[in-house]
Amino acid sequence: MDEQLVEMIIKFRDDRGWKQYHNPKDLAISLSLEVAELLENFQWSSSEEALEGKMPNIKEELADVFIYAVLFAESIDLNVHEIVMEKLNINSDKYPVEKAFGKKNKYTEL
Amino acid sequence: MDEQLVEMIIKFRDDRGWKQYHNPKDLAISLSLEVAELLENFQWSSSEEALEGKMPNIKEELADVFIYAVLFAESIDLNVHEIVMEKLNINSDKYPVEKAFGKKNKYTEL
Amino acid sequence: MDEQLVEMIIKFRDDRGWKQYHNPKDLAISLSLEVAELLENFQWSSSEEALEGKMPNIKEELADVFIYAVLFAESIDLNVHEIVMEKLNINSDKYPVEKAFGKKNKYTEL
Amino acid sequence: MDEQLVEMIIKFRDDRGWKQYHNPKDLAISLSLEVAELLENFQWSSSEEALEGKMPNIKEELADVFIYAVLFAESIDLNVHEIVMEKLNINSDKYPVEKAFGKKNKYTEL
Repeated sequence: MDEQLVEMIIKFRDDRGWKQYHNPKDLAISLSLEVAELLENFQWSSSEEALEGKMPNIKEELADVFIYAVLFAESIDLNVHEIVMEKLNINSDKYPVEKAFGKKNKYTEL
Repeated sequence: MDEQLVEMIIKFRDDRGWKQYHNPKDLAISLSLEVAELLENFQWSSSEEALEGKMPNIKEELADVFIYAVLFAESIDLNVHEIVMEKLNINSDKYPVEKAFGKKNKYTEL
Repeated sequence: MDEQLVEMIIKFRDDRGWKQYHNPKDLAISLSLEVAELLENFQWSSSEEALEGKMPNIKEELADVFIYAVLFAESIDLNVHEIVMEKLNINSDKYPVEKAFGKKNKYTEL
Repeated sequence: MDEQLVEMIIKFRDDRGWKQYHNPKDLAISLSLEVAELLENFQWSSSEEALEGKMPNIKEELADVFIYAVLFAESIDLNVHEIVMEKLNINSDKYPVEKAFGKKNKYTEL
């Protein structure tokens, strides 16, 4: 996330005095609930049907996923840029281009 | 997410020829699986126990949540900065400071 | 669940001295993790492809969903037969046959 | 589940002509959504607070988990009694009483 956006999310939380509730276990639960709300848009539908009929809600729920992911990171002082960079390196080792190209298998099955 | 990071995530995907599989329905499922892997670190533990014993995995799984959230956004051409800004505005209306301050209730119960 | 099966699940738990950990919040998290493991079998696949290639794991993960759902019910002394009967009645009111027949809409959109 | 209950769940589905939509991939998604609704009752709360304030909803959502788990099993002709018996045997091997007693570790860490 760009810094400006992270700051706005933190300000939103702090304006409402919510930091006191934001322990990481409950924030991980929140993330799981927000992702379920996103996924609900695709229940009983193809991707195409969902995008056609439910785009406004898809946008909102995806935004909530980002917001809670940032709040989770903040609650334990993680820097999003850093952990994503590190994970891309780990994933590059798990999925080397020459083995993973064009395959949808898990790395344990490459 | 900052632009540089989004570009690295896209490059990671494209180097492996994975775009063909990335329909939003399956990416929403992926997001749900990554969040479950994050949440698993808190099963049978307090937040404190989890942070003490499982920080390296928590970092990795949270990074995967961001990566899949970006891949989902990309698959349907959403701009993360824009949708998060819009959602913060919506949430500000749902949770006005004067009603929501210090409360953990859902907006329907404020 | 038939009574015999519920008893075997409880015996499995008690033989291992696990009741002490089985608070409902963590059991709800467990349920969520088991469902994610079930859902993982359908990621990047049609239903048909998943059934063809992953039936043994689908069986195991679905069984775990039932096992944890029973353990959750037991942890707060709920009778599965009773709550399911009650919920079928509630659902019958939400989805009257004449309005819901052949439709996949949520009850709020019927 | 006892046979009578399974039959009532199937009858509920068939009275509404819903079998046509019940492919296992979407039913696995449904299960995941129902578990999220159950888990929502425990967000920002201890187990005790949740049980005190939200018992009626907890009952309903747990019942929905059982209903969708049965509908999933039916959609691919699995016998719940059989798969749970088999899984209890597998779990007994993964968690032998003498190694697992009183421990909350995953079997890979026993």
